[in-house]
Parts: sequence; structure tokens; C-alpha cells
Amino acid sequence: MGDSDAAGALTRRRRATLAAGRSASLLPMNGRSAAVCQDSVTAEVSRDDGQGKRDRSLETVRSKSKSEKKKCRNDISDRLSCHKTQQSLLSSASGYSNYRGVLNWCVVMLVLSNARLFLENLLRYGILVDPIQVISLFLNDPYSWPAACLVIVSNVFILVALYTERQLSKGSFTELVGFLVHCTNMAVMLTFPAAVVLLVPSVTPVGGVFVLGTYTILFLKLYSYKDVNMWCRELSTVKAKKLARSLSCKSQIHMHIPMFTREDMYYFVFAPTLCYELNFPRSPNIRMSFLLRRLFEMLFFTQLLVALTQQWMIPIIQSSMKPLEDMDLSRMTERLLRLAVPNHLMWLMFFYWFFHSSLNFTAELLRFGDRQFYKDWWNSESVTYFWQNWNIPVHKWCLRHFYKPLLRRGFSKKVSQSAVFFLSAFFHEYLVSVPLRMFRLWAFMGMMAQLPLAWFVGHFLRGNYGNAAVWISIIIGQPFAVLMYVHDYYVLHYRQEAD
Amino acid sequence: MGDSDAAGALTRRRRATLAAGRSASLLPMNGRSAAVCQDSVTAEVSRDDGQGKRDRSLETVRSKSKSEKKKCRNDISDRLSCHKTQQSLLSSASGYSNYRGVLNWCVVMLVLSNARLFLENLLRYGILVDPIQVISLFLNDPYSWPAACLVIVSNVFILVALYTERQLSKGSFTELVGFLVHCTNMAVMLTFPAAVVLLVPSVTPVGGVFVLGTYTILFLKLYSYKDVNMWCRELSTVKAKKLARSLSCKSQIHMHIPMFTREDMYYFVFAPTLCYELNFPRSPNIRMSFLLRRLFEMLFFTQLLVALTQQWMIPIIQSSMKPLEDMDLSRMTERLLRLAVPNHLMWLMFFYWFFHSSLNFTAELLRFGDRQFYKDWWNSESVTYFWQNWNIPVHKWCLRHFYKPLLRRGFSKKVSQSAVFFLSAFFHEYLVSVPLRMFRLWAFMGMMAQLPLAWFVGHFLRGNYGNAAVWISIIIGQPFAVLMYVHDYYVLHYRQEAD
Repeated sequence: MGDSDAAGALTRRRRATLAAGRSASLLPMNGRSAAVCQDSVTAEVSRDDGQGKRDRSLETVRSKSKSEKKKCRNDISDRLSCHKTQQSLLSSASGYSNYRGVLNWCVVMLVLSNARLFLENLLRYGILVDPIQVISLFLNDPYSWPAACLVIVSNVFILVALYTERQLSKGSFTELVGFLVHCTNMAVMLTFPAAVVLLVPSVTPVGGVFVLGTYTILFLKLYSYKDVNMWCRELSTVKAKKLARSLSCKSQIHMHIPMFTREDMYYFVFAPTLCYELNFPRSPNIRMSFLLRRLFEMLFFTQLLVALTQQWMIPIIQSSMKPLEDMDLSRMTERLLRLAVPNHLMWLMFFYWFFHSSLNFTAELLRFGDRQFYKDWWNSESVTYFWQNWNIPVHKWCLRHFYKPLLRRGFSKKVSQSAVFFLSAFFHEYLVSVPLRMFRLWAFMGMMAQLPLAWFVGHFLRGNYGNAAVWISIIIGQPFAVLMYVHDYYVLHYRQEAD
Repeated sequence: MGDSDAAGALTRRRRATLAAGRSASLLPMNGRSAAVCQDSVTAEVSRDDGQGKRDRSLETVRSKSKSEKKKCRNDISDRLSCHKTQQSLLSSASGYSNYRGVLNWCVVMLVLSNARLFLENLLRYGILVDPIQVISLFLNDPYSWPAACLVIVSNVFILVALYTERQLSKGSFTELVGFLVHCTNMAVMLTFPAAVVLLVPSVTPVGGVFVLGTYTILFLKLYSYKDVNMWCRELSTVKAKKLARSLSCKSQIHMHIPMFTREDMYYFVFAPTLCYELNFPRSPNIRMSFLLRRLFEMLFFTQLLVALTQQWMIPIIQSSMKPLEDMDLSRMTERLLRLAVPNHLMWLMFFYWFFHSSLNFTAELLRFGDRQFYKDWWNSESVTYFWQNWNIPVHKWCLRHFYKPLLRRGFSKKVSQSAVFFLSAFFHEYLVSVPLRMFRLWAFMGMMAQLPLAWFVGHFLRGNYGNAAVWISIIIGQPFAVLMYVHDYYVLHYRQEAD
């Protein structure tokens, strides 16, 4: 390298004496760049890597020492040098990583391709939206309202629970008696509506889901109510013992005295939570604008969901009956993927409609302080994280009244977790099979399948891959179950009619 | 508020003496929370806003002063309070903004919906991919290779340019003569191949595009070559004058002595740039792994592009001929959107294939230092930014040899910019119309339409909206032009055959 250095210096001197460009041809191209324009050189030094760096920097030092930079920085010689050593942005050598625009790209692509699907759908089927038809989903004949009646009846169970707790607090019920009353009360709560839905023909599937949903929620609420009041009694007895030993009256500040008023009970029944508490955090006042915005969202999304179902879901489902009967695998997959998109979008809308709009609306109306109805499940990198964060009221209930009690009873974490999934699976099946009046266990298996899935994702996928896996399981899993049920329902009812 | 405070303190004391829960019912729910559990209170104070804050904080101070927190922090009373005042993540009140998962969602949705389209396509058309057929796009009869011959001929023009510059530097050509020779040389470069493509029937459209593309690139290169050498002469004359005045021999270091060797010329011809420079920045050595990766990408994407065209583009284009003839607007839109997706994806692949893989491959092979062939156009929030950054070689050329010279000649920025777009529009039309042998001006108008579009986006859209607008213009604009040309070509050729 020393030689080339010397050579470089030499030739530079030589070139300085106006020798013709021939001599320059002896040099490697790199060497020649010294002659062009000092500031292009100084510019390069910072970027250029490896060979020819040393003599360049020498060169620049020399140039800096001389006061000729201003001359060199004239227009023409700026024009002459327009390249500098640098990497392409996409090659790993350049540490570039700003792909902000890609998100916009994804959004635009999704919107456009769905606009296309929408247009194709309109061209093929015309407009199928029919809001009136929705009513028929709830009512078979407008003179009997079984669903509504059942919901009204549910008050009985609420009052039974309240009455029992009153007796227990007074001491006129022993713990055992109270426990038995509660158990029977709740057992009836689950069996009675199911029986009615199964036996009364005028209950429509949608009406059935509505009723059983209401009763399930009540069941969970009353279970929590019973537990909490029991814990209060335990606590106060503990305190009483303490008091007996040390007579420091201070310790009684921690006495828990629940109040068994109807207001308290019904506030809990309507409050957007499944976990009873002696005193819920309250928001200072009702924000009217917030309330109205949520109300508007509720109405808007209801309409949108109905419209999309009629225009988008039903045609696909109907068109996928034939392939399902023929067990034509490739076409079934095609139909499944075709159904996945609208189904998923509607699930997202439903999520927002229920967990953000509706629950926040209720909470605002009741000045209920705790608005954490969901956490950031969209970022979940494992299946368990998703199930722990997308439905906080239920998760909270499971944790407080099922998972932790099991742990306290000495069960292992694995067992308790499986038990939670089992419970959830049971209720999923309960809420689907009974209204449809057919027991296929798709929903049950769907929930139980989450356990191996969770194990797989947790062990083999991290970060964005885990997140993607969760998304796929949501997007593909649901429409699969939907198709199964619809197919069976279709076969059960319409095929029989056909025969 | 003072009263309620006093009342709170009073009741607290009263409750301390084991009075029954009745008394508590006199209080508002908020007040009661004081009794539950100190640490739940302390927890709330930090979050709870507005009403009942003052007496709470009092309460906590009092609690802190007493040493009873450890007792209160026992299991049961933790169980009892499970809510705290907080906002939902999606409501603006919570400053939450982490939607990392949404990008994964978009990707998954895009992949799934395209998988669906792919499957549908296979089910409908079967496999249409046929690599051999590609050759027929370049050759009509395998015994005449007009495209190849034209490319070989192009060397003549290169050597003419080199010869002219040599004469100019020797001074045996005057500036005027040199200018005239260059002009004729370049005029012929544009007209001659076009004439051949138009007149020789054995030139296929694809072959034609290839030839004209090569000649256009050469044209731009030689234009730059001529300009740069001219500037060098100007500079040296300036220097000579300076020298005459002040005899400081130092100033001659900035003498620019171009060398007119064939190696130098052909290095520039093959180098991945359109702007000539006396000495290009060089990379120190050839990175074999980098070279091979780029080579693999080149081969892979070539195959993929061919396959997708045959399997995806052609069926859609064929199926959209009928609606185009009938001028059935809604169906035309549907077909346009249907074409937009594959067309856009293939454009992206082409971009990567050409601007990243191919140009980097050439650059690595020639140890060409400047790898900036594109900038971050995917983040562009204005149309002008896109055109300035997606194709850097051309942008650099326009800036250096067309835009700035115009400015120096005293034209306004607006005029010069429009002129650049006009030039680009001309070449777009030139590269499409001549090979297709029909002059429809779609490409020309497409480019010129960028001016009003740029004005609109620049004035009315900012940030992500601007970015989205740019994406839409790319995704929708191209297939529109494609459909127009294909339709006209189809009408011109196949319909005539039909008649």
C-alpha cells in the first residue's frame, strides 16, 4: 500500500504540472478521484470503506491545510461529481428500517380488494339487506314472547340469592343451609331456561341465545355475589377472633359489613362486571358527549352487522352447502377462506360493539368506574395471552372465583388452567347447542383445542410469528366452527323438508 | 363537602364499634369504600378523580400514620376488591397507542385472502404456467433476431460519441461541430430503432420494448457523457484564465482531465447509472455471497413474474375484454379492481427485481460504489416525492441534465418541473406505443396526469392520507392504463381476425 501511496502523491504532483490525462490512465479509478474536487473527496472519506481510504484522508488533510476549498466549491465542479459510495436501502448493510408506509399500503390493499368483493357480491346477488326480517329472528309468532318472559322470570333467582345472603348475615341460615340454597338456585338457573328453550317450539335460535346468554351472565354474577359475601363473613370472624385476643379496637376498622339492599343488588346485576364488590369505584359524573357517542356506535354497528350478515355471510354459507355435502375438499377450503374474511370482520365489529360501545355505555350510565373490559389482545404473542386479555370481565371472574380457589385447594397450575378452559368450553357449547337444539360438540372441541394450540404456539413461536399464529387461529378457527354448525343445522332441517 | 367529610369520619368511628351494617346504608357508596380495605383505598386515591377524593386522602394519611397496613394486606380482603377506576384502551381518554399487532393482522388478512384468490383461480382455470411460451414473446421466427441485432448495432453510436469527444478535447472539432455531431448521433439513436421496430414485422412487442429500452438508456447516458465533458472543458478554460492572472500553480490541482479510453466509456455504459462522472466511487472488492444472492433473486423473480402473468393476469385481462366492449361500467370497475391486485404485486416484484437485485448485481460486478438506486418512496406523502425517489438513476439524470440547466437558463421552477414530466411522458409513450405499433397516448396522458394529481395531493392531503393517496394512485392508475392498451390492442388485432 505504501508504494501506491507514493505513486498517488507522485502522480498528483505530476498532474499538477498540466500533464495530459494519459498519465492518469496508469492509476486505478479510485486514485483519480483525488483530482476531481476536494469537497467531493471529503464527502467520500466519511462514507467510503476500505481501500484507498488512507491516501484519500492524507489528501483531504493536505487540501484542508491549503485555503483553496472556496474556489473548488464552484458550481461546475459540483455538477461534475454526483455519485458517492452508499448502500441500497433494502440491503442489510444499510441499517434502514422505516417502513411506516407499508402499513398504509396494507390498509389500502385490504380496502380495495374488499371493495372489489363488495362490488362483485352486489353484481351477483343484488341487494339482500332487509332490516324487518331481523325481527322474525327473535319472534316466531308475535303473540308469544317466550324469550322476554324468561328474562323477566330471572328476577326470581336474583331475589332468592339476595334473600339467602340476608338470612346468612343475620345468622338465621347456617353456612350449610345457605350453601345448599345457593346451589339449588344456581342449578335451576342453568337447567330451567335450557329446558324451556328445548321444549317450547316458539323460541327461535336467536331468542334462545339471548335468553341463555342473559342467564349465564346472571349465574356468574350470583356465584360471585355468594363467594364475596362468604369471604366477608370469614374476614369478620377472623377479625372477631383477633379482637378477642388483642383488645386494640383499631383493628375493627377493617370490618367488612356488606349491605343487602335491592339497590346494591340491582346495581351489581346491571353493572358491566361479573365480580361483585362491596363498593365499586365510581366515576364522578356522566359525560353526556361520551354517552351519546357510544350510543350512536351501538346503533350503527347493530345495523351494519345485520346488513353484512344478510348481504355477505348468508350467500357464502348457502353456496358452501353443496361442497360440504359432496365433501369436495379443495372447494370446501376455498369456501372456508371465502367465509373467513366477512366472519372475521364481523367478529371484530361485534367485539367493538359489545366490549367498547355497549359496556362503556352501561358503565357511563351507572357511573361505573372500572372500564377495563379488554386489554391489548391484538398484540398477543401467545394464545393464553389472547384468552386472558380479550374478555376481561369473564377472565377476572375465572381468575377470582375459579382459578385461584382451585390453586388454594392445592391443584397444580396446569390442572387449574385446563379446568378453566373446560368450564369455558362447557358454556360455549351450552350457548350454542341448546338454542340450535342439536348437540355436536364443535364449540366444545373448539375451546378445548385451544389447550394444545396454546402449548404449540407457546413453545415454537415468538414475537410477530406468535402474534400472526394467534390471528390465524382466530380468523380460520371461527368460520370453521360456524360452517360445521350451519351445515349440520341445514342438513337437519331443510334436507328433511326436501325429502 | 365539609359536612360529608365530618359525616364520613363520624360513621367510620361508629362502624369501628361493631355497629350493624344498617348505619352504612346512610352513606353514598363512595363513602363506604373507606371501610373496606386501606390498601384498596390507597390504590384508588392515585386513580380516582373528583368527588370524595379529599376525605379519601385524609383517610389514607390517617391509615398510613397507623401501623395496620400489613394486617389489611391479607389474602381475603385482597380478594374482596378487584376493580379500580380506569379507562378502556380504545377510548381517547386512555393515551394508549400500541397497535403493533395490527400490522401482523393486515399481513395475515392479505395472505389469506390472496391464498383464497389463488385457490379459486386454480379451481377455475387449472395450471396455465408455461415457461417455454416466454421465448415466443421475444422471437417470431427463430432464424431472425432483429432485437439482438439492433442491440449490437447500438455500439456504433457509443463509439461515435467517444470519437467526437476525443476530437473536441484535441481541439480538432470546434464546439459547434461537436454539438451538431452529438445532436445528429442522438437523434438517429431515437428514430432509427423506432423505425426498425415499426417496419420490421418480425419484431415482437416484448422484443421491441427491450430494444427501445436499451436505446433510451444509452441515449440518456451519452447525453450525460457529452454534457460532463463539455463542463470539464468550460472548467479548464476558467482555470486557464485564473492561471493567466495569478500564477499560483496550486490552483491547477482542480484541473479536470477526462480520459477518452474505450474502457472508461464501456464502464460507464454498463455501470448502473445514467450520469457520467470522471471517476465513479468504487467499492473495495466484489462480495461473492452478495453477488450470488442478488443473482438468485434475479432468476427467482423472473420465473415468478412469468408464472403470475400467465396464471393470474392474462385470465383477468381476457375476461375483462367483453365488459370493456360493452362499456358495462360496474363490471369494468370490478375487473379493474380485480386486475389491480396482481398488477400491483407484480409491479412491486419488478421494482425489487430491477432496482434492487439486478442493479446491485451489476454494481457489485463492476465494483460500482453508489448503490442508491431508490430511496424510501414507500413512505412518500406526496406524488412529487414518489417520482423523485422511486427511480434515482433517472431522477438524478433529469435533475442534473434537464431540470437544473433549465433553471440556469432562467426558467421558473414550475415550468421546469412540468418540462421534466413532459419529457418523462414522452419516453413512456415512446416505449409503449412504438412496440405495440399503435399510438393511443394513454401512457403520455398517464404521466401528464401526475401534475394535477401532485398539485391536489400536495394541497389537500398530509401525512398518512397523502401516503395512502400515493399508494392508491399507483395501485389503480397502472392497471387502468394497462387495460386501455390491452383492450385497444385486442380490438386492433383479434377482432379484425374475427371479422
